[in-house]
Amino acid sequence: MPDDNTVDPLGRFHRWFGQRARATDYAVRETPLGALDGWRVDRSTGDIVHRTGRFYTVEGLRVTALDGTERSWSQPIIRQPEIGILGLLVKEFDGVPHLLMQAKMEPGNINTLQLSPTVQATHSNYTRVHQGNPVPYVEYFTVPGRGRPLADALQSEQGSWFLGKRNRNIIVETTEEVPLLDGFHWLSLAELDALLRLDNVVNMDSRSVLAAYPAPPRAAVADEDSFRGALARSAAAPADRTDLLSRFTAAKAARSLTRERVPLNDLPGWHDDSGRVVREDGRYFAILGVDVEAADREVPRWSQPLLAPVGRGVIALLTRRVDGVLHLLLRARTEAGTFDVAELGPTVQCVPENYQEPEASQPPFLDYVLSLPQDQVRFDAVHSEEGGRFYHAENRYLVVEADDDFPLELPDGYLWATLRDMTELVRHSHYLNVEARCLLACLNTLR
Amino acid sequence: MPDDNTVDPLGRFHRWFGQRARATDYAVRETPLGALDGWRVDRSTGDIVHRTGRFYTVEGLRVTALDGTERSWSQPIIRQPEIGILGLLVKEFDGVPHLLMQAKMEPGNINTLQLSPTVQATHSNYTRVHQGNPVPYVEYFTVPGRGRPLADALQSEQGSWFLGKRNRNIIVETTEEVPLLDGFHWLSLAELDALLRLDNVVNMDSRSVLAAYPAPPRAAVADEDSFRGALARSAAAPADRTDLLSRFTAAKAARSLTRERVPLNDLPGWHDDSGRVVREDGRYFAILGVDVEAADREVPRWSQPLLAPVGRGVIALLTRRVDGVLHLLLRARTEAGTFDVAELGPTVQCVPENYQEPEASQPPFLDYVLSLPQDQVRFDAVHSEEGGRFYHAENRYLVVEADDDFPLELPDGYLWATLRDMTELVRHSHYLNVEARCLLACLNTLR
Repeated sequence: MPDDNTVDPLGRFHRWFGQRARATDYAVRETPLGALDGWRVDRSTGDIVHRTGRFYTVEGLRVTALDGTERSWSQPIIRQPEIGILGLLVKEFDGVPHLLMQAKMEPGNINTLQLSPTVQATHSNYTRVHQGNPVPYVEYFTVPGRGRPLADALQSEQGSWFLGKRNRNIIVETTEEVPLLDGFHWLSLAELDALLRLDNVVNMDSRSVLAAYPAPPRAAVADEDSFRGALARSAAAPADRTDLLSRFTAAKAARSLTRERVPLNDLPGWHDDSGRVVREDGRYFAILGVDVEAADREVPRWSQPLLAPVGRGVIALLTRRVDGVLHLLLRARTEAGTFDVAELGPTVQCVPENYQEPEASQPPFLDYVLSLPQDQVRFDAVHSEEGGRFYHAENRYLVVEADDDFPLELPDGYLWATLRDMTELVRHSHYLNVEARCLLACLNTLR
Repeated sequence: MPDDNTVDPLGRFHRWFGQRARATDYAVRETPLGALDGWRVDRSTGDIVHRTGRFYTVEGLRVTALDGTERSWSQPIIRQPEIGILGLLVKEFDGVPHLLMQAKMEPGNINTLQLSPTVQATHSNYTRVHQGNPVPYVEYFTVPGRGRPLADALQSEQGSWFLGKRNRNIIVETTEEVPLLDGFHWLSLAELDALLRLDNVVNMDSRSVLAAYPAPPRAAVADEDSFRGALARSAAAPADRTDLLSRFTAAKAARSLTRERVPLNDLPGWHDDSGRVVREDGRYFAILGVDVEAADREVPRWSQPLLAPVGRGVIALLTRRVDGVLHLLLRARTEAGTFDVAELGPTVQCVPENYQEPEASQPPFLDYVLSLPQDQVRFDAVHSEEGGRFYHAENRYLVVEADDDFPLELPDGYLWATLRDMTELVRHSHYLNVEARCLLACLNTLR
């Protein structure tokens, strides 16, 4: 049972997490893609595939997107068609729901360990195709009736980097006795809220699932003339979202996304640079290989390709009070790997390094968001994207409150939503992209 | 303005519809696929394509579906990637909402005319790629703010016959004066309910959109110990459907659907028979060509391929009262063209002719549904599927009430839902397949 954290909030967690970090003996070394153990570069296409044909592949993709303007480009992309599980187990201790989190090392993490959900497993992994040890706690998510589902939907991941990848995001509440295994820790929502405000502690998978956690209402602050009050009123906004759904449907119906697989070794603008696949102008990302040694993982030594973005991104949600109710500015986004034409993303989602050439037009609202005074910045932390596929991929997550004269009428593809809208949409697949879901988890810490 | 129909219910409609039918001068003649004007059979693949590359194509598909068992098969399929509009315009007359319906001839209709929604248009059609006349009333659905959306989602069509096809299903209410054009007619929901009980009057597109019409509550019957009372209680059932969503997500995560395009002229089990593509054992469907002459269409003469099923299908919804609340039995279905692995279909959806060989196992619950006494059959009418793509494709739509001892525990892939669940799910894409949506429109006539 978790101890009482009122005296030393999170003290027990930090001691445990620090001890786990010290005990985690690992090393990650970059290796040329052609020399990765267990992987091969396909001779004719240049695609990077595991010798078993499993796990994932890095391929070339030619994309034509019609989303306002017609854009065409080619890029490497990760294909991983299997649907994995991101599962969060919940149990009440002394009337307070606690979530079972795991300290997990991933080779792409900028720091060794981050907090992952109870279960973070690929399909081959949890169905034990490889006859490894069973994934701990997976039965709570795969055996019907083992607990009470609080949320359960297939959700997409980074559309710029993954081709149509989804994971099952599931939260299950149990009343059973749950054995606490090594490497796992129960945390209350308040504790997780505090950890989400720290840089690079709560990993992407955790943030994605947490976004769907049915947050308890905070009626007490609903009368406050404060950001928190406006957020509480946003959570209690009218349930009818037909107009929002209609705008999103219109955006999807007006767009198209055509994709064609092309050889990775023949991608215009990309080439091999000493065993990395990079863009000639240095923008976007590189594909690189790593050799990993980790004493506490089931497989102590392995190699894999990773995608390394060129810089730290900005993922920002612009909010504005309208008649005292906080409104959140979302943007319909069509990316190379988007599962179904478009999903709703944050107001701003970009890596500023990609727009530094003099002639490059800046993403809308990027400058505005970054120029707001500190007292209008409601959330500001750096978080990492999935360290099992991405190398040192960090984003600055921002929730900002715009001035009262920020325009309500917006360019095509932008939509205002309430917190209630987002909370309802995240219950279904393919409305909110992973960046918007991760921001929703951050936004919920402000309630 | 519609007249008062209390004295002569639907009299005015039938006079108008009969007059339209008599005025519709048309002829449909079967023609070998290789001789269709404007179309060509691709020399190497046998695929049937329009010479402009537009409209739709008939291709071969090899499918492997893992949905309980692993099944593999090959079949022809219609590919039509553009998203069209099925739009229903609503306006109140004397406080009663009326829907603007169109009498429309389609070459595959078993009878000349059926009622289509206000707008039934492909994307090329309504964006006027072909520089034809504008589609009447389309501006209500494409110009934002022109009316108030009541429902708006991309919805799939027949997964066994179409590869990932969707249309935007949209209902818009207007308070403007609406000019009544030739071939259009305002009908109240009560009138449409009456017409849905007739065979082959309300076409598939109308039924699909009508399913999303927010039906007014019928609190008055909620206390009745009747089917209608149980249905009213089902419409007012609790709003929490996390468990239902979780079961559906589990079904999708456990399934997979792999598709590969293969040449139509090299499909195992299928061959060309005098200008038709048919299966050697005569099952499922044929692809055939027709020449059409129609005096009142914008293009007076054209040719096209159509898909002709081998027999009349059964689309049945089994219902059961549980503690006085009507429960509806849905089945997760994975079909060749399903957009995303699985959608929820009716309890039974099949063409019995396909299961007549002695060794063929019957679809579950087909015999049960057909064997129930007449007083447990709540809805029974024959409706057609889209006559613009399917030739004489009829289904018997049934809503039946099972005995009180019908098992609540069911095989994998079956789910109980309330009417409130279905009404909520139909607001989103890819939960209810077109057969389930059409049945929902039929079920709503019983409220």
